[in-house]
Amino acid sequence: MDSGIVLKVLGLLLIIEAIAMVPAIGVSMYYGEGDLSAFLISTVLTALFGVVSYALTPKRGFVRYREGFMIVGLGWILVSLFGTLPFVFYGTFDSFIDAFFEVVSGFTTTGATVLADIESQPHGILFWRSLTHWLGGMGILVLTLAILPAMGMGSFQIFKSESTGPMPGKLVSKVGKTARILYIIYFVFSLLEIVALKLAGMSLFDSFTHTFATMGTGGFSTKNASVGAFSNPSADWIITGFMLLASVNFALYYEMIVGDIRALFRDGEAKLFLTITLLSVGLIALDVGGLYDSMAETLRYAFFQVASIISTTGFATYDYEQWPELSKAILYLLMFIGGCAGSTGGGIKNIRLLIVLKYIRRTLYRLIHPQAVIPVRIGGRPIAEETIHNVVGFILVYALIFVAFSLILLTQGMDLVSSTSAVVAALSNIGPGFGLVGPATTYAGLTDLTKGLLSIAMILGRLEIYTILVMLVPAFWKQ
Amino acid sequence: MDSGIVLKVLGLLLIIEAIAMVPAIGVSMYYGEGDLSAFLISTVLTALFGVVSYALTPKRGFVRYREGFMIVGLGWILVSLFGTLPFVFYGTFDSFIDAFFEVVSGFTTTGATVLADIESQPHGILFWRSLTHWLGGMGILVLTLAILPAMGMGSFQIFKSESTGPMPGKLVSKVGKTARILYIIYFVFSLLEIVALKLAGMSLFDSFTHTFATMGTGGFSTKNASVGAFSNPSADWIITGFMLLASVNFALYYEMIVGDIRALFRDGEAKLFLTITLLSVGLIALDVGGLYDSMAETLRYAFFQVASIISTTGFATYDYEQWPELSKAILYLLMFIGGCAGSTGGGIKNIRLLIVLKYIRRTLYRLIHPQAVIPVRIGGRPIAEETIHNVVGFILVYALIFVAFSLILLTQGMDLVSSTSAVVAALSNIGPGFGLVGPATTYAGLTDLTKGLLSIAMILGRLEIYTILVMLVPAFWKQ
Repeated sequence: MDSGIVLKVLGLLLIIEAIAMVPAIGVSMYYGEGDLSAFLISTVLTALFGVVSYALTPKRGFVRYREGFMIVGLGWILVSLFGTLPFVFYGTFDSFIDAFFEVVSGFTTTGATVLADIESQPHGILFWRSLTHWLGGMGILVLTLAILPAMGMGSFQIFKSESTGPMPGKLVSKVGKTARILYIIYFVFSLLEIVALKLAGMSLFDSFTHTFATMGTGGFSTKNASVGAFSNPSADWIITGFMLLASVNFALYYEMIVGDIRALFRDGEAKLFLTITLLSVGLIALDVGGLYDSMAETLRYAFFQVASIISTTGFATYDYEQWPELSKAILYLLMFIGGCAGSTGGGIKNIRLLIVLKYIRRTLYRLIHPQAVIPVRIGGRPIAEETIHNVVGFILVYALIFVAFSLILLTQGMDLVSSTSAVVAALSNIGPGFGLVGPATTYAGLTDLTKGLLSIAMILGRLEIYTILVMLVPAFWKQ
Repeated sequence: MDSGIVLKVLGLLLIIEAIAMVPAIGVSMYYGEGDLSAFLISTVLTALFGVVSYALTPKRGFVRYREGFMIVGLGWILVSLFGTLPFVFYGTFDSFIDAFFEVVSGFTTTGATVLADIESQPHGILFWRSLTHWLGGMGILVLTLAILPAMGMGSFQIFKSESTGPMPGKLVSKVGKTARILYIIYFVFSLLEIVALKLAGMSLFDSFTHTFATMGTGGFSTKNASVGAFSNPSADWIITGFMLLASVNFALYYEMIVGDIRALFRDGEAKLFLTITLLSVGLIALDVGGLYDSMAETLRYAFFQVASIISTTGFATYDYEQWPELSKAILYLLMFIGGCAGSTGGGIKNIRLLIVLKYIRRTLYRLIHPQAVIPVRIGGRPIAEETIHNVVGFILVYALIFVAFSLILLTQGMDLVSSTSAVVAALSNIGPGFGLVGPATTYAGLTDLTKGLLSIAMILGRLEIYTILVMLVPAFWKQ
């Protein structure tokens, strides 16, 4: 283990975080609501730790297998810890665990909140809160598109490349190359959404903050009633569209830009994602029909909520707890599925669902022809057996963690639906669940143990579980 | 497809069923409660159809792959149809679907009932109702221990033999050899339980009927309040013990009888089963503590209910809906797991759980050593990769069916907990679930569509899913 390079990269992360706090200082100064000093101290402290940690390393090292995992795991925790500083110094929360929960929820783009009265907070604080989503979304793009595949993990690598194992040295250049293109797409989409929301009549502040939450598929709003507070049908549709855009593989947009205009509609994962989305909208629209005045309104609410959940954003325009049982169950199911690989969306992801569905079909076929060797194919290309094991194992591990965490939450005075939906809402980085953690409530009333566990679940989910679990296997640390 | 041999075997099954109705005629005559004619007509009709179908086949044929599946699939349905006759002729139920549901629930050893007032029925009818459990239990022993493995399927074959493919001719001798030993064990255990329950103070009629339901891990009682109606602590413990005995692999008892006295405690599956059972009892005892007068009483209720659910019997001595959330969730979880392979218990089964847990561990290890070839071992012996695929695929298919059936039930006015627990209670052949189908209620109030779907789920679960699904794959019928 080369601790030097780990410290150096972690230092760099903190420096970036300090720089990211600067816009919040600007917002704080503009509105003058008493949170300026909190931001100034936070920025200086974060920068100081970053610079010291960065400077501690005398020379350039190598990021290998173990170093990569340490950086990813520790980095997410460290950035969250320093991200709480503005909240801590301003005094937003009563306890540190609340602040930590909120910031982890922000950076992991979950969007679960313990803030009972969001609108009472100064604009600077709310801006920083929303910005964590956007930064988290950027982090995920690097993570899932560059770092994890290079380490032979993550969902993107499933169909873009084979497991490559440790790649000393190459990591940085690969990150740089891939990430730059994806960041440009992320930036352009964000800019487009800000402009669209402004044109739809939202304030510039709300346009920015809600774009952060949309593009990162986070879900923090600046209003207690989430997006529903604006009662703005155009904004609903704009956000619906961008939530879906943000949860499709960003590499497909790149392919479309460089000329392959039909890339999106040829991609098996994107097709499955869109099919599930449209099917869910249709079923829910039929199921909730009577609740709304017109077909257009029904479709708007159904489309928004389905996009919000499957993209793992977690915005709400309606208290979906009031919907009939079937509609709620469909939303619950979508929470497990989530977005596509290589997007900012969370969940099990459609590529894994696709592989598992084809795997099941093969299993049935093999009952009849036990000797047949049939590869599982995605887009015509055979998937390595090792990758299939990886995917199937992921879903089983996801299920195990889901059950284990739910059981612990049940000891904390939560009912079955509340506890299980809280766990999946955290693991899939969605935000609201059902019951005690429904869209009309917050996570504020839960016990500290629950908040701590859900924070771990959010990080586990965000890092695609394996990244954390692998560090718990003794063999990882040997040799 | 050799239809002749299929008809011949189905005819034989009906003849056996007609013979099995004879004891019910005796009970009916003894009590003289007006159900005698119903039994006489039913027996004659069943025997008639059986003899005609058996006689139709001019010569001896071969039971191959496809014939085996047809016999198993059609046999279960046909025996259920003829099993409804006594109920139909006596007029127990208002509709045929109710009678069919009840009998499928009986033969699949599920124990879900649509009979609101059980105690108003004549003894003959209740005897036949309970006897279907015991006959179903025998059927399962042949099925899982002799027929399915010979066809390269079923959970027992997972660790006892490799997939063998079609075995023309050999089938009958194999059934005969294996089944005889297991039937003797089944008979002896049944006899022991009847004697024990009689000594504990239950009537001979109740001892017989509750033994049928215990040994088949069925769950039909002759009382509206299930076993709780007897308020007999000794009987509670006796039934608890036999429920557990009935859900452990019967082959282990054979090994113990022929000299390997420690076979039970060396078997990985039995160890996992006992560990889960004891752990659940401990957690529930701690969780429900305050509800009962003494530690002994707490343990009795906790042990009975855990044994009842994990064995997939479904008896109740207490309305577990009144237990705290954690206890209910543990019971819910046990519904998926079920008993051991080669027992009369249902569910996913502990051997599959064991293989999947080891498979997950290997997946994590392989993240670190992608090149390592590590077989999954059970009891020191490596499991074939094909078997692992089979097991993992089974669990995924189980999950898919669980979700699909639950969604349909949600359209029938059921809430999430009621619908999902009804589906797992049917798929795992348990009986009671939670909410609308809790232990204090019946399935009587559900829609006909729901009852029909749950009947299909019971058969699917009983035949370990694959047996039915494979017949839906077009390739099965080719050539």
